[in-house]
Amino acid sequence: MKKLSLLGSCGSIGNQCLDVVREHPDKFRVVGLASFNEVEKILAQIKEFKPVAVSLSDEQSADELRKKVKGSCEVLSGNSGLEEIACLEESDTLVSAVVGSIGIRSTIKAIKAKKNIALANKETLVAAGSVVMAEVKKNKVNLMPIDSEHSALFQCLNGEDRNKINKLIITCSGGPFKFKKRAELEKVTVQDALGHPTWSMGAKITIDSSTLMNKGLEVIEAHWLYDIPYERITTVMHPQSLIHSMIEFIDGQVMAQLGPHDMRLPIQYALSYPERLSNSKVEKLDFVKAGKLEFYDIDLKTFPCLAYAFEAGKKGGSLPCAMNAANEIAVFSFLKQKSKFLDIEKTVRFVMDNHKLIKNPSLDEILSTDKQARVQAQKFLDELSQK
Amino acid sequence: MKKLSLLGSCGSIGNQCLDVVREHPDKFRVVGLASFNEVEKILAQIKEFKPVAVSLSDEQSADELRKKVKGSCEVLSGNSGLEEIACLEESDTLVSAVVGSIGIRSTIKAIKAKKNIALANKETLVAAGSVVMAEVKKNKVNLMPIDSEHSALFQCLNGEDRNKINKLIITCSGGPFKFKKRAELEKVTVQDALGHPTWSMGAKITIDSSTLMNKGLEVIEAHWLYDIPYERITTVMHPQSLIHSMIEFIDGQVMAQLGPHDMRLPIQYALSYPERLSNSKVEKLDFVKAGKLEFYDIDLKTFPCLAYAFEAGKKGGSLPCAMNAANEIAVFSFLKQKSKFLDIEKTVRFVMDNHKLIKNPSLDEILSTDKQARVQAQKFLDELSQK
Repeated sequence: MKKLSLLGSCGSIGNQCLDVVREHPDKFRVVGLASFNEVEKILAQIKEFKPVAVSLSDEQSADELRKKVKGSCEVLSGNSGLEEIACLEESDTLVSAVVGSIGIRSTIKAIKAKKNIALANKETLVAAGSVVMAEVKKNKVNLMPIDSEHSALFQCLNGEDRNKINKLIITCSGGPFKFKKRAELEKVTVQDALGHPTWSMGAKITIDSSTLMNKGLEVIEAHWLYDIPYERITTVMHPQSLIHSMIEFIDGQVMAQLGPHDMRLPIQYALSYPERLSNSKVEKLDFVKAGKLEFYDIDLKTFPCLAYAFEAGKKGGSLPCAMNAANEIAVFSFLKQKSKFLDIEKTVRFVMDNHKLIKNPSLDEILSTDKQARVQAQKFLDELSQK
Repeated sequence: MKKLSLLGSCGSIGNQCLDVVREHPDKFRVVGLASFNEVEKILAQIKEFKPVAVSLSDEQSADELRKKVKGSCEVLSGNSGLEEIACLEESDTLVSAVVGSIGIRSTIKAIKAKKNIALANKETLVAAGSVVMAEVKKNKVNLMPIDSEHSALFQCLNGEDRNKINKLIITCSGGPFKFKKRAELEKVTVQDALGHPTWSMGAKITIDSSTLMNKGLEVIEAHWLYDIPYERITTVMHPQSLIHSMIEFIDGQVMAQLGPHDMRLPIQYALSYPERLSNSKVEKLDFVKAGKLEFYDIDLKTFPCLAYAFEAGKKGGSLPCAMNAANEIAVFSFLKQKSKFLDIEKTVRFVMDNHKLIKNPSLDEILSTDKQARVQAQKFLDELSQK
């Protein structure tokens, strides 16, 4: 029985994680939950999963919740509450499915408390990969990826010698704009960008998929997860998204992992590894029905965000953190229709060009880089909108 | 340094095996060779690889060779010579790449002599799977497949729990007649059948690929290699032959192995396992150039040989041996243009229908089943041609 603390329980990954727990009540038990201020949603989760403690973002919502749970469950709040849930004595595994840099510190604290980690939060590795992986090694915990691409790479490495990798081949659906030209991208709307062809995900990651920044963040995560130099990481467009990623070994043989478009599978695998569990709710792949799997080159001139991510990763230090922060601000601005689609890449480029690189940043330096880059990005966007 | 005895050194697999040795002289050394009576070819191999001993099929050719090698290498002959090469004291690994049931006894002897086996010979597992696998277990040797499909399945199982397999998915190019109708198959010539779309192989296996009997034999081999019931083995047509096979696990996730059309890769892997070695001669896969991977259902009414193989495998005992023998006789008759393409399946059906099943055959019973089925098949074909 694995005992889980789940951060981000009301989000897309959080909900699907709970569905995995529902499928395997004999294997997993939820002991802690944390979410934004979604009082009613988390109340329903408390009733169903009976955690020891939960946490909400602010004290007011927490207080409202406390009155409703009537002492059946401890209710915490704020950053300290989030971190307490991550490190609960009753839990052995942290599932980090919060969005944003708030996920970094709680994950590092959980690693130090010897919890295994199932990681969906991108910022943890993109911004703080060096610090996080050093703690993982030091504390000898398992860090399992939840993303379908990284789960695929992990599965392709099962039983293999990592020194015999020739290259990682991360597949990319291409997003909703895959065959569009630059001129067409100037006019795309939020509505257009939210129409992802294969995966149903949260808004932020869906926009990142349309700029291909999502693939860029995944490249950086893969670098840290598998300790592979960027020169050995490649991407290929595969619109059907059925091959979730591949690894070419030095002999030229390629291992690939395929599966249906259902995030419950990589979540379940991250929780059950090294065991594989059945899941009655997930439909099996039908190759004949799928018909064909296609592959195309990715046009980095049309989608420069992917190139920016490779550049940031290679330069390293605090740059990926700054890039990620700038991207997040620009994406939320676009989602609020306060800026245009191509302003996302402009903002990222501007912040990267004006970033003062810290070579081996501490956690505090990473967190302050994150803050500064956000301010810088917002200022850049404000100035753009006034033009 | 692995020391190899190679049976069938002048055939297609034998030559490619020697090419792998050529690429890795620090890893592999050839200590024994056996071939048909190809005196000049094996003489060149002796000069290049300096084996301790070689064997040819008949004594006359052996004598001719003896005069040419002038004592630099022991020259044996016949079945006893073949078996002696298989069990050479100097060798630790037998590569069995001979064609036909002659491969069975020498492989079993090598297993008893504690040699690891790299297996290309189909008859060994199709006809004698129960006997061979019992000896493999008893003598604790490794049996590595050389076929690209079985090598793929082996690689998909790396680091996995075999109890968590949902199904093996063996891919099939479909052969040169993949979209043909029954009426069209009545008139196809040897020339037509030898035009395999993706793999360059020997004549026998190329005809087997055109009837899909080759896939049937592979299904039976996979059953023995991985101890999987036939109900969990499926086949799918994949004309590009780049996915060499797949395994679906109980969670619905699928592992696939892909690679270029180059038999040197599975041969090298069978020899180097668990290590992966680079190979400068093999071109890497280019997914964008490959463009797409397609999948189709296999029409078992048009290609009944595959269904016959499943049937023979499920009924078990001596039936797969009889089926394989009948097929071999019918294919050679077709290759000699003494019978028609569809006579192959008719011969197989006739021999299967008239076979007296031995449930748990001994090796001797298997070898006598093989002989009897050949006689029966030849008689059936002779009668057909007289109609």
